[in-house]
Amino acid sequence: MTSNDLATLAQQLRVDSVRAAAAAESGHPTSSMSAADLMAVLMARHLHYDFDRPDHPGNDRFILSKGHASPLLYAAYKAAGALTDDELLTFRKEGSRLQGHPTPRALPWVETATGSLGQGLPVGVGMALSGKRLERIPYRVWVLCGDSELAEGSVWEAAEHAGYEHLDNLTVVVDVNRLGQRGPTRHEWNLKAYADRFRAFDWHVVETDGHDTDAIDRAFQEAASTAGQPTVVLARTLKGKGVASIENREGLHGKPLPDAESAIEELGGVRDVRVEVRKPAAARTLHAERAGHLELPRHEIGEDVATRDAYGQALAALGTARGDVVALDGEVGDSTRTEYFAKEHPDRYFECHIAEQQLVASAVGMAARGWVPYASTFAAFLTRAHDFVRMAAISGAGINLVGSHAGVAIGEDGPSQMGLEDLAMFRAVHGSTVLYPCDAHQTGRLIAQMAELDGVRYLRTSRGASPVIYGPGEEFPIGGSKVLRSSDADRLTLVAAGVTVHEALSAAELLAGEGIAVRVIDLYSVKPVDRDTLREAATRTGCLVTVEDHREEGGLGDAVLDAFTDGGPVPRLVRLAVRTMPGSASPEEQLRAAGIDAQSIVAAARLLVEEAVVR
Amino acid sequence: MTSNDLATLAQQLRVDSVRAAAAAESGHPTSSMSAADLMAVLMARHLHYDFDRPDHPGNDRFILSKGHASPLLYAAYKAAGALTDDELLTFRKEGSRLQGHPTPRALPWVETATGSLGQGLPVGVGMALSGKRLERIPYRVWVLCGDSELAEGSVWEAAEHAGYEHLDNLTVVVDVNRLGQRGPTRHEWNLKAYADRFRAFDWHVVETDGHDTDAIDRAFQEAASTAGQPTVVLARTLKGKGVASIENREGLHGKPLPDAESAIEELGGVRDVRVEVRKPAAARTLHAERAGHLELPRHEIGEDVATRDAYGQALAALGTARGDVVALDGEVGDSTRTEYFAKEHPDRYFECHIAEQQLVASAVGMAARGWVPYASTFAAFLTRAHDFVRMAAISGAGINLVGSHAGVAIGEDGPSQMGLEDLAMFRAVHGSTVLYPCDAHQTGRLIAQMAELDGVRYLRTSRGASPVIYGPGEEFPIGGSKVLRSSDADRLTLVAAGVTVHEALSAAELLAGEGIAVRVIDLYSVKPVDRDTLREAATRTGCLVTVEDHREEGGLGDAVLDAFTDGGPVPRLVRLAVRTMPGSASPEEQLRAAGIDAQSIVAAARLLVEEAVVR
Repeated sequence: MTSNDLATLAQQLRVDSVRAAAAAESGHPTSSMSAADLMAVLMARHLHYDFDRPDHPGNDRFILSKGHASPLLYAAYKAAGALTDDELLTFRKEGSRLQGHPTPRALPWVETATGSLGQGLPVGVGMALSGKRLERIPYRVWVLCGDSELAEGSVWEAAEHAGYEHLDNLTVVVDVNRLGQRGPTRHEWNLKAYADRFRAFDWHVVETDGHDTDAIDRAFQEAASTAGQPTVVLARTLKGKGVASIENREGLHGKPLPDAESAIEELGGVRDVRVEVRKPAAARTLHAERAGHLELPRHEIGEDVATRDAYGQALAALGTARGDVVALDGEVGDSTRTEYFAKEHPDRYFECHIAEQQLVASAVGMAARGWVPYASTFAAFLTRAHDFVRMAAISGAGINLVGSHAGVAIGEDGPSQMGLEDLAMFRAVHGSTVLYPCDAHQTGRLIAQMAELDGVRYLRTSRGASPVIYGPGEEFPIGGSKVLRSSDADRLTLVAAGVTVHEALSAAELLAGEGIAVRVIDLYSVKPVDRDTLREAATRTGCLVTVEDHREEGGLGDAVLDAFTDGGPVPRLVRLAVRTMPGSASPEEQLRAAGIDAQSIVAAARLLVEEAVVR
Repeated sequence: MTSNDLATLAQQLRVDSVRAAAAAESGHPTSSMSAADLMAVLMARHLHYDFDRPDHPGNDRFILSKGHASPLLYAAYKAAGALTDDELLTFRKEGSRLQGHPTPRALPWVETATGSLGQGLPVGVGMALSGKRLERIPYRVWVLCGDSELAEGSVWEAAEHAGYEHLDNLTVVVDVNRLGQRGPTRHEWNLKAYADRFRAFDWHVVETDGHDTDAIDRAFQEAASTAGQPTVVLARTLKGKGVASIENREGLHGKPLPDAESAIEELGGVRDVRVEVRKPAAARTLHAERAGHLELPRHEIGEDVATRDAYGQALAALGTARGDVVALDGEVGDSTRTEYFAKEHPDRYFECHIAEQQLVASAVGMAARGWVPYASTFAAFLTRAHDFVRMAAISGAGINLVGSHAGVAIGEDGPSQMGLEDLAMFRAVHGSTVLYPCDAHQTGRLIAQMAELDGVRYLRTSRGASPVIYGPGEEFPIGGSKVLRSSDADRLTLVAAGVTVHEALSAAELLAGEGIAVRVIDLYSVKPVDRDTLREAATRTGCLVTVEDHREEGGLGDAVLDAFTDGGPVPRLVRLAVRTMPGSASPEEQLRAAGIDAQSIVAAARLLVEEAVVR
């Protein structure tokens, strides 16, 4: 394509963006128009992509971080022959693949869901790490960002990570159109402000006029030929470029053009230029070899093992059995115990430092490239990445997240380090699986099964040691539970998970000594829950007492309700959970203070029985 | 104090850090020892603080962002005469004010809870903004950071904000001890790497030897005398400084010293040096004038008003009535409608750009200074600040967060913009209040009441307009609800909030036409819930059907359970909620697809009645 052809293609992308938004009566045409020349040059000259084979391992990866500019993306897909004009005009309509913000659940060419700003680059870093360190395929990751989103800290977490890792297979293009949603950005067209920042984070920086296709071409060439550093192309652009009456005007974000018809005319009318996107070189997928048999660590019944230790050991074993498993950690691998994996599989271990958003984003990027990532930090600090987890679910990303140091049971460190809201956070994620093992063998089995599940999978581990209660051959199906104690005389059921399983077992023993029989269920699968077993217990014992080292809202207690919301009978329920703000204290003191230790369970059960609340 | 005295004081801080950790048998002495000289010079020469009057408006603010170095902080409090040696040795014990990580809930001199890294600076920015733009008192905000935590994006969000706002009343001291928890940091002692980054974000940078008290003194002087820019003091230090055998050694993070006794001897033994911390100049509190009567906007019954519009208008009115109300927004004030407040009270409006962590952190910092902040963005994007909200609860911070664009009802923009997990997230926050109004008058009343509550308060607003159903004089107590429709013949109860209230009312009307009477409850107070009304409805109708524009986990459906977890009878329950991943569609199509529109409610109710599941 000549420079003229490129300019024509860019105008077509603008026209189609305007048309799509006009047909939808919503959307972001002005944000699309500023980046049309960038997109045209990328598609015609630099991207290597086979639209017939989105799974081609050699494909470049393109991420539209400014996901609201989706009309531009769809217009580009149309120009590449991947979409028809008819489909383009279904933009934002019910049932259309062309959603307001792009997602890979709907379209095979979309690498990751965007629409929450500041996430495209972090996920791109994950893909670039995969290309460089795991796949070793010379594809390039292109990320198109808006300028507003550079205010997000996640962008600088990612910039730091990419600069430090010398990701020269990563190019970020920033569409500096000066205007955010409600008005000017902090730095408007001061490209130097952005250049200084990226340079400080060890990036190569190229500044360009974002409407000069020759200059853009040179900038992209420079990016692709820069070794040892990622490159950012800072492109000065006009929001609404191409239509004089709306160019660089405030108050037009996220709205169809006031007069689409005359705008289309001004842009040169409807065209049907086709762009030949270059195909990638042949490449083979290097991962996904499964070495074979999984040999999980074995322990003696009664041996004291922390589930975080069991996790680290199981993950290392899983890494031996499966070549597609990778591990990531937020600079606490000695606490989460991913250090065991790091030692055995250093080539598949990624240190993400104290940067939890990038930790999860890297996992999302690697999952998109076919890896099975396990990302770990303290359960409490996964809240830092909540928005990334939410978006991972929208992407349909298969990621494993493991949070250690759950609950008040960590003891002296105090509430800032205690995961007390994690179950609530992960239960509410669409399509998630939430697991909370109480012993070493259970942890190992669940960790292995997680690799085979869809969506976001979360497992919670504990800091302190607890006795092994299951044999090494025991199965723990997802959605299952274990009835650890039952009799026909049970007067209520204790439902526990993790550390509280052991407290519940002790409580049951103490209660038995008082002549009160109670059932004990280990509800290791918090989502999905084991409806049948819970219903059976409800029928037989009439009352369920949940005991959890978590806030009373959204955790185990609420999860039990998942078994009883079809309009059928609901048993009596009591939730023992952490209702106060803990301070520092020993693990035993913490459990007692929270009212979730064996004695507190006994007291609650006794009260329920004596007051004849239950039978 | 002479240089020698300062060195002696620093040694005492080390000794007391070692002693406190030894007594606790846990804690972070090595991380305390690296920063002891910095702390000694700050206390003796630069901090202005009246320990007898922690509420003195002129006090400088000191934030220990590396909260794990709490032994150093407590040692400094002791040296200042604020703590006894006996209390120092209660460190990390049950009931002690000296928690593993400092929190203002326990100690009056702590400005904000830390322990989740990368939060001290963002909250400090909030305080510095307050000092400069609201209080106009020349106190200085000092933040002591670790080097590991500079990997957090939130640090750079804050750096960007502080640089842009020219916060020359803010000084960050970075204790560059080269070692994180599990090993070396990315940049170790490369101070230039950090200097380049801060300079790029428009900060003044001073590099110093962190163990040379004269050099530190000069650095702090330079910081305090720098105008127009915040200053970062990058201090090269040794982790474990002062004890040769542990200095700069890996593997000693977060552990008491192996031989505390000989370490104390090497550090010169136990001392009792007192430091005279300079008192602040007299200053008066400028805020908290309440101008008087609150005049909330009034609407006609039946008028269509979006609750986000009602929020913006009510907030503007509240700002007129109360001089202590401030508003912050994440660059979407035209969507959340805080623009109404911005227009009327520009001096109390803070644009935080697309940076939700800093948005919430600014609110926390301002709340600590006595303001009543309302921080707003899309409900979906508040997930970005989850860890900050969690820590705000640990601080006991009184902040108001308002999330707009809740649920699938936003329509075409798609799932990335839909708040579908926000109720779950906020319900699980300790001490939180969660509100979800359905009409304009209710919104206004709730917004006004939020200002008077403790802790984290969340209110959810909707994008689309809905009819006003309550009169302007109606009261909406926190923890209350409204029974909108009831009769003795009710066969079930619809429990709704926000947009689903209107769907439930329509459904009840349709069902009445079929001879099926149902009760309708507007559960605007999601936490706390109105137990009495829900129990009454349960007793009378036997079955509750919750209808919510939120995931089925952790939201309204689970909240209803809060009324029934005392072991008493639980009604039959059905949860209508968003169970699939939405795409783009109109609001009406979205509600239908999610099964939470009037017709879906009718269908569910009919089924329950016909199948005689209920009575």
